[in-house]
Amino acid sequence: MEAIFEPRSVAVYGASRDERKLGHVLLRNVTTGGFGGRVVAVNPGAAEVLGLPAVPALEEPVDLALVSVPAAAAQAAVADAARAGCRAAIVLASGFGETGEAGRAVEQRLAALAGEAGMRLVGPNCMGVVSRHGDGWLNGSYFWRLPEPTPRNPHPRVPPAERGGWSPAISWGPRERPGGVSLVSQSGAFGGMFFAEARRRGLGVARFLSVGNCADVTESDALEWLAGDGATAVVGLFVEAFQDGRRFVAAAERCEKPVVVLKAGKGRAGARAAASHTGSLAGRHGAARAAFARAGVVEADTADDFFDALQALAALPRAGRCVAVLTISGGPAVLAADAAERLGLRLPPPGPATVRLVRELAPPFAAAGNPIDLTPQCPPEGFPPAIAAVFDDPAFDGVLVVNCGLDVPEFGRGVAAAARRTGKPVAAFVLDVPAVEAELAAAGIPVLGSPERAAAAYAAVATR
Amino acid sequence: MEAIFEPRSVAVYGASRDERKLGHVLLRNVTTGGFGGRVVAVNPGAAEVLGLPAVPALEEPVDLALVSVPAAAAQAAVADAARAGCRAAIVLASGFGETGEAGRAVEQRLAALAGEAGMRLVGPNCMGVVSRHGDGWLNGSYFWRLPEPTPRNPHPRVPPAERGGWSPAISWGPRERPGGVSLVSQSGAFGGMFFAEARRRGLGVARFLSVGNCADVTESDALEWLAGDGATAVVGLFVEAFQDGRRFVAAAERCEKPVVVLKAGKGRAGARAAASHTGSLAGRHGAARAAFARAGVVEADTADDFFDALQALAALPRAGRCVAVLTISGGPAVLAADAAERLGLRLPPPGPATVRLVRELAPPFAAAGNPIDLTPQCPPEGFPPAIAAVFDDPAFDGVLVVNCGLDVPEFGRGVAAAARRTGKPVAAFVLDVPAVEAELAAAGIPVLGSPERAAAAYAAVATR
Repeated sequence: MEAIFEPRSVAVYGASRDERKLGHVLLRNVTTGGFGGRVVAVNPGAAEVLGLPAVPALEEPVDLALVSVPAAAAQAAVADAARAGCRAAIVLASGFGETGEAGRAVEQRLAALAGEAGMRLVGPNCMGVVSRHGDGWLNGSYFWRLPEPTPRNPHPRVPPAERGGWSPAISWGPRERPGGVSLVSQSGAFGGMFFAEARRRGLGVARFLSVGNCADVTESDALEWLAGDGATAVVGLFVEAFQDGRRFVAAAERCEKPVVVLKAGKGRAGARAAASHTGSLAGRHGAARAAFARAGVVEADTADDFFDALQALAALPRAGRCVAVLTISGGPAVLAADAAERLGLRLPPPGPATVRLVRELAPPFAAAGNPIDLTPQCPPEGFPPAIAAVFDDPAFDGVLVVNCGLDVPEFGRGVAAAARRTGKPVAAFVLDVPAVEAELAAAGIPVLGSPERAAAAYAAVATR
Repeated sequence: MEAIFEPRSVAVYGASRDERKLGHVLLRNVTTGGFGGRVVAVNPGAAEVLGLPAVPALEEPVDLALVSVPAAAAQAAVADAARAGCRAAIVLASGFGETGEAGRAVEQRLAALAGEAGMRLVGPNCMGVVSRHGDGWLNGSYFWRLPEPTPRNPHPRVPPAERGGWSPAISWGPRERPGGVSLVSQSGAFGGMFFAEARRRGLGVARFLSVGNCADVTESDALEWLAGDGATAVVGLFVEAFQDGRRFVAAAERCEKPVVVLKAGKGRAGARAAASHTGSLAGRHGAARAAFARAGVVEADTADDFFDALQALAALPRAGRCVAVLTISGGPAVLAADAAERLGLRLPPPGPATVRLVRELAPPFAAAGNPIDLTPQCPPEGFPPAIAAVFDDPAFDGVLVVNCGLDVPEFGRGVAAAARRTGKPVAAFVLDVPAVEAELAAAGIPVLGSPERAAAAYAAVATR
């Protein structure tokens, strides 16, 4: 598995000089992503591709062979990589098990070939690997046609359209972002969603592996390796059908890092669409759900929930379920409170000291319950002490912050200072308040896209 | 009610020369929003405010009096407006019924004063009104402190941070955007969310009314008027507690336009927070939900759902529940299919003619079920005929489109042409595909933020 995520040398089978070919895109991604190791282009028809000398077959082994040739030619490429003594191969082509019995047989031959040579095999029918490598990235992945890259978004929450910056070169450096979020996905396209959300939210990405049809390497193999990976802090998995549900649950149980799962194909049509991945747990998701809960896996219901949970778990400590909703915006805060209760969080009333201080600092029409609504008419200098009182209140394990349109820096500073001092987790929904948002961002506080999603983000870090 | 939404003349009580005062912000909003009618500043202590002559009391009536004075001074201002013969007044100040019994008594006196003079009263404790007026806007609303305006977003779906462009002047022209979406809100802050989402999604706004404590004008009054309003195509309501649930349901039943409701305060903490608005339906939302369903009201569970539904209903015709998921992105399309089934949509298989054409045009590993996955390897010229076949298929009332990362214009053009030709509704989730997105936007096809939200948007226009 180390050869997949941390190879020192890579070969690209199918490296092409034709820009329209996927093998060209893949080689360009590998060579421009910042990968510092050795790269070999394998192409029997060319002496050189993208400035690299090309060979017709591998002469000495590499750690990782990326196989980007049509399905019919994949077997020869895998055989060549196995013969040369490569440690792992990723087969990116489609047209195997997902097309039916004949394809499945070819897929099994690929896995057998690799297995006999002691080589791990990822895929086929996948998008490859993206992995931190020193100061850069190994971008061993491709999309059919690359969209136009645009400048990097300077602001995480409401970004400009960033189109395809993740490829050919990942558009952010390894030291820019915190987080260490890794994704294992049975869908390649879901990887595109992951990179788009990572950019939009400012998540630090550690590893991405598209496992496709899982002929050899499964989601459980990847999870087991990532559990011990120093670059990974949180693991996300997009799964259409588990290859071995029991093994996965056992791996998740052993993993000391937060694990978030999005299971697709729970409906009849969805299961039909995911039919090429018929795993043991598919079709009886009730049992899986209970097993996940026992193993401490955070299960997301939607893609938004999934990315919200990854963002929260990358940024916040785990804490209890008693939460304060702290706001100057009545209606949106009520939405946050509703959502928090729906998600099993508790909203106890504040203690008497907090109530006294809110009454002292905020206008008479402020609400000192929970939600605690300081109102926009609270004098700016009143915010830091009132906010500090809420964070200090032993009734609360953490805080949900909601602010629509009151761009008073003291509000953001009060939240940031109290969060730092108390170490209590805080998730926020803010709108039209650039100064407040800058204070929250500097303190690493996740800002979500709606009041309900701020509540869901908190729920992801809440312990029982 | 016409005097509230379509006044020809407006007075601003509390118009102040002090930029930090809300009365200053309000008068600036009214005078710079593009309102073409007469504006009178009422301020006993100044001869002129913002270049307008100020009067100590109204000398002749206006259609609408905007009252922006502290709670203690509101009664005198309302009495003055009533004496002068104004048709309606909006009291924006806080500090009334939401603070307890004493405040409720003052609120009732305001309503009685207005009632005796035959004047309608909106609020108190509200954010005012925003309404189309000729080529401009009446922006009779305020926020405590205005955020910095930034340039208008040229692209609806993934916009740059636009901060507060809606105020002091609404940042888009009345003819730029289709839609005619109107919002009635018991929360002022939720109005900020509405304008932010309208900008982000490119929704055309017709009217916004913040009804606050509903001392006289209620959400039902507003709904009844908007039902007959030529500028309004879709009505959204944010409600914490219904003033008269039966009347609201009856009004919704009579309204021929789509009505979307977001009910806040359904949880215990939320209901506590909304306690100043104790309406008859609060606390027994199960009954309300059933009544809404019978009246054809679309009930949203979250703010995201609410805005998704408004966007879909503003853009798409109503149609049946049988939907095709059309994609080149397997995993995200399975999420759309799962969500569609959860929401009660049906995903029948395509007819034999469609299957035949997909088999002909797309690669062998394409999926001709539902989802219909043409795969990124489908030749560009294959998209328009394959897409046309899906739209023409009588099995489908409408289509969900999912495309992550394949920016082939033929795909977008195929969808736009087939949607125009067949008139079937289509909602999309697309990612990193600017050319495709431009084709969809030009055809007025709503693009949502996730596969599940595209499904939810379709569900909002689906009839039983």
